Amino acid sequence: MDKADDPLAQLDDYDGELPLIATNRTRWFGGQAIDTGRLDRLSAASRSDHVEVVDIELETARGMEWVLDEFRDNGVDCIVSHHTFEDTPEREVLDAIFTQCGEYGDIAKVATFPRKHTDVLRLLRSINVATKTGIDVAGISMGRVGSHSRAIAPIYGSKLGYAPLADDESDYAPGQIPLERLRTLINDLTEDSEIQCAAAPVEDQPEQRQPAEH
Amino acid sequence: MDKADDPLAQLDDYDGELPLIATNRTRWFGGQAIDTGRLDRLSAASRSDHVEVVDIELETARGMEWVLDEFRDNGVDCIVSHHTFEDTPEREVLDAIFTQCGEYGDIAKVATFPRKHTDVLRLLRSINVATKTGIDVAGISMGRVGSHSRAIAPIYGSKLGYAPLADDESDYAPGQIPLERLRTLINDLTEDSEIQCAAAPVEDQPEQRQPAEH
Repeated sequence: MDKADDPLAQLDDYDGELPLIATNRTRWFGGQAIDTGRLDRLSAASRSDHVEVVDIELETARGMEWVLDEFRDNGVDCIVSHHTFEDTPEREVLDAIFTQCGEYGDIAKVATFPRKHTDVLRLLRSINVATKTGIDVAGISMGRVGSHSRAIAPIYGSKLGYAPLADDESDYAPGQIPLERLRTLINDLTEDSEIQCAAAPVEDQPEQRQPAEH
Repeated sequence: MDKADDPLAQLDDYDGELPLIATNRTRWFGGQAIDTGRLDRLSAASRSDHVEVVDIELETARGMEWVLDEFRDNGVDCIVSHHTFEDTPEREVLDAIFTQCGEYGDIAKVATFPRKHTDVLRLLRSINVATKTGIDVAGISMGRVGSHSRAIAPIYGSKLGYAPLADDESDYAPGQIPLERLRTLINDLTEDSEIQCAAAPVEDQPEQRQPAEH
């Protein structure tokens, strides 16, 4: 909403087929909204028939938990999200962020920035750990280094991804993968196996002993 | 060679365009060769013009290092490989296996079996760590759970992959991805970025601060 000229009127006029996720970010969270009235406008959006989910920041949820009740009274689910734009928190901190987002939200969304490749692995691990505890997770390792996380996070349990509809590079952040390419990647990566839901221990799924790689 | 009827004669008759990697595995290493004369036959293969690389097991290299000199005298590179078919070693053990394979071989090849998703991440991490120390690495997390490692290991530094040429499922182990599909996956996963060679610290490659995921 913070990037639209007149978001509530535009919501009224929306005639697309897809349901919407509403966000209204302040500058602090990478957006452009001013604080005053921000949550009121987001709450108004949550009353739109087109909006099925509202995304609110963990910090906001923590300080103003009442707003989640208001969203839910309006019949939408809540994504509680956390972004770190400069780095990827350490393992224990990451796990705690997922847990807290999951306590407040229906979906725990965590987006981190990798400074090196192993930072991507740390996020994937936390996605997997949180998923196994029963949290519905969306996890993204941002930027170019983390780009492949968008295609493989579903394998680790991530249930929600973000992809631009068009191939217009100006429209998306570094690392984002256009929708059709992402769809193909995820399908191809999981073609031989249904996505092995991370909640089901793999130990229970015996696999035939296989020959050596040659 | 252990699966061919008459490998040395077949090597002589080979008229394909691609250079070959020769292996001759005993049962202990997932193959069918008997011990007697196994290394002599592999050494004979290394004298073929078609063979550019010989793959020998870490355990063999350790016990019979002279065989590596013989291979190299015959003008081939050596892959020194280690397979664990039942599980994925712990982090420190994995790192040590890569290091040892790299000490004996031109390429350190490590294939492990994941019992759960985080086992795949542990292998990818070790691939990355070994690559950063300057080892040329080939890393594979086997089986269905590890299948996606074949597509993303190159991002972490892996320089050699294994893929069946055909789409014939009977021809390949669980988790292997046919060549053309693997090629497409790797290309698509690295399309926007050259593969960020793991040897180059990402910290040195500043990236613009990016907007929040919406």
